[in-house]
Amino acid sequence: MTESFTTNPLFERVEVARRRKRRFRDEQITLAHGSGGKSMHELIEGLFLEYLRNPLLELLEDQAVFEVGGDNQKTKLAFTTDSYVVDPIFFPGGNIGSLAVHGTVNDLAMSGARPLYLSAGFILEESFAVADLRRILESMRDAALEAGVQVVTGDTKVVQKGGADKIFINTSGIGVIESPANISVSRAQVGDKVILSGTLGDHGTTILIARGELDLETEIESDSAPLNLLVEEILDEATRLGNIEAIRAMRDPTRGGAATTLNEIAMSSEVYIEIYENQIPVREEVKGACEILGLDPLYVANEGKLLAIVSADIADKIVERMKQNKYGQNACIIGEVNAEPQGIVAMKTGFGGTRIVDMLVGEQLPRIC
Amino acid sequence: MTESFTTNPLFERVEVARRRKRRFRDEQITLAHGSGGKSMHELIEGLFLEYLRNPLLELLEDQAVFEVGGDNQKTKLAFTTDSYVVDPIFFPGGNIGSLAVHGTVNDLAMSGARPLYLSAGFILEESFAVADLRRILESMRDAALEAGVQVVTGDTKVVQKGGADKIFINTSGIGVIESPANISVSRAQVGDKVILSGTLGDHGTTILIARGELDLETEIESDSAPLNLLVEEILDEATRLGNIEAIRAMRDPTRGGAATTLNEIAMSSEVYIEIYENQIPVREEVKGACEILGLDPLYVANEGKLLAIVSADIADKIVERMKQNKYGQNACIIGEVNAEPQGIVAMKTGFGGTRIVDMLVGEQLPRIC
Repeated sequence: MTESFTTNPLFERVEVARRRKRRFRDEQITLAHGSGGKSMHELIEGLFLEYLRNPLLELLEDQAVFEVGGDNQKTKLAFTTDSYVVDPIFFPGGNIGSLAVHGTVNDLAMSGARPLYLSAGFILEESFAVADLRRILESMRDAALEAGVQVVTGDTKVVQKGGADKIFINTSGIGVIESPANISVSRAQVGDKVILSGTLGDHGTTILIARGELDLETEIESDSAPLNLLVEEILDEATRLGNIEAIRAMRDPTRGGAATTLNEIAMSSEVYIEIYENQIPVREEVKGACEILGLDPLYVANEGKLLAIVSADIADKIVERMKQNKYGQNACIIGEVNAEPQGIVAMKTGFGGTRIVDMLVGEQLPRIC
Repeated sequence: MTESFTTNPLFERVEVARRRKRRFRDEQITLAHGSGGKSMHELIEGLFLEYLRNPLLELLEDQAVFEVGGDNQKTKLAFTTDSYVVDPIFFPGGNIGSLAVHGTVNDLAMSGARPLYLSAGFILEESFAVADLRRILESMRDAALEAGVQVVTGDTKVVQKGGADKIFINTSGIGVIESPANISVSRAQVGDKVILSGTLGDHGTTILIARGELDLETEIESDSAPLNLLVEEILDEATRLGNIEAIRAMRDPTRGGAATTLNEIAMSSEVYIEIYENQIPVREEVKGACEILGLDPLYVANEGKLLAIVSADIADKIVERMKQNKYGQNACIIGEVNAEPQGIVAMKTGFGGTRIVDMLVGEQLPRIC
């Protein structure tokens, strides 16, 4: 079925462009460099790695995984960081505080880690309202409680009015990896299934509407949520089935959306990923809003969803188990992994056609998280 | 000698003011809340702790220390975070990149940890020059190399022009505590000596002059430096002398200066700390600049200095060892720990008088780090 695509000239052009050696040539930072998409990958691979390269960083995972302890007492840890600059800071379904906890908890969880401790670094603009800070801290507390993590160290900086936009929060996190699972964006294998934990596009669409620049009223809420317990259930189910190796890759499709995340997996694993448009759950309200806004839900950020690449033999059972978790109720298989053309994602459309799903190019929605 | 101070009415007023239950009543964030001084302590104790309180956070150390691993395989770790918003981003002796590595390395080292891994979270302003980013990354690379740490995970956000001031960097860090030392701001004991690793005020004075608002030309450079190897030597010397318990407290006097750090120790340890003005090393150029600028070097930020509280019996030997390290060449004993009045720091002046050295009140120098 997919073999025919290898000679598709469109695929070839994409592949040739990617193989070109990337040297970072931009002279100024643009919003696209923070998009999560192509420009950001170029910045990371072409600039950050040039200076800071080391074996852990160059894996380009969303978290670093390493061992600590003596020879007979190794403990495997995950470590991650994210700064949150979302605008507006309050939105339906959450605020910058809950988002900062969920985002970092999820980056840890995607490695199979049990998140333990967070740090919180605040950059506040002079004259920021303490009442707003209280609401944000309240949400951080509740989010941390739900995820079972503690904020154990922090930092506060204040910049003069106009030096920053209200509040930025960095959360870094440490988790412990107790499962023998071997999860990596580079482990997708031919025949594997692509599982999505729920509807796409809720967070990004909510943020865009919350900016109030559009005269659009909907009931959409951000999906911002902690996914660590859902991940624990996935790993538990695989263990129960005696096939922990079946869980290949997990990643939360935030900036750049599901399209970008699937491309990251396809490229790292050197596989072809095919998804089916009519299998991808998108809320009617999100679909409607995206049509009006000219957005493609595949590229819109999510903050409470995960994509998992799972061996075909247990994929259905994993989905079944996920559906029992409140953050996995709409879990489903949306695609599969094939061999060729390597590093490409394509979608079978509702009309039976096939279109290439590239990484996000440019910037759709700045400051989405 | 110090007993006479317990009836000094000035001390009593300070103590009464401190005992008053602190509820955070400010309605707006001011620059003083980021000063490292009194207002920041009120923000942390009166607001952040109210929402995020847990046994690790409420210790108010500059880093969280905890154990990971199973019952028979505990590893003790330190975890810390700091956001850097220094203005200007380039200054004599360093830039925001080297500062971000040094500051986090030092916060880890002050707990006796060997710093291992850093995260780096960048918030970039749209149109920031890539050439400047390269210089910053180069400095981060060099600083990490010198300190023996690796940046293993990162994040990049871009905000629109005017949404942030050029570049902010958060670095969080993880270190492993292998020494049996028990280091805490609450462990200073009567009779202990106060050791300072070198000259005071270099960093803050440099930054203020680098802003170019003052027509002042000097040769002052920031002291920004990694102190982890100096700390290793301190711990090694104490171990060699069979008295690791002698190392009570260590802290780097950054925002708020040495005055604020000593107050933190005096309050946490419930002791009286007396320092001697004529023992405190301050460069002539810094002294001169501070006089012109109306600054007190005791309150000016340092980024490559540490204060250590050490048992009197080995304090001289520790100082001797410190002097062999390039970042401890000017190490000296600047004071001692007494019993009463609790929670107070005072300085014997050159003229033989005694003046109270309170925490920094208000904000002297915003965006110093």
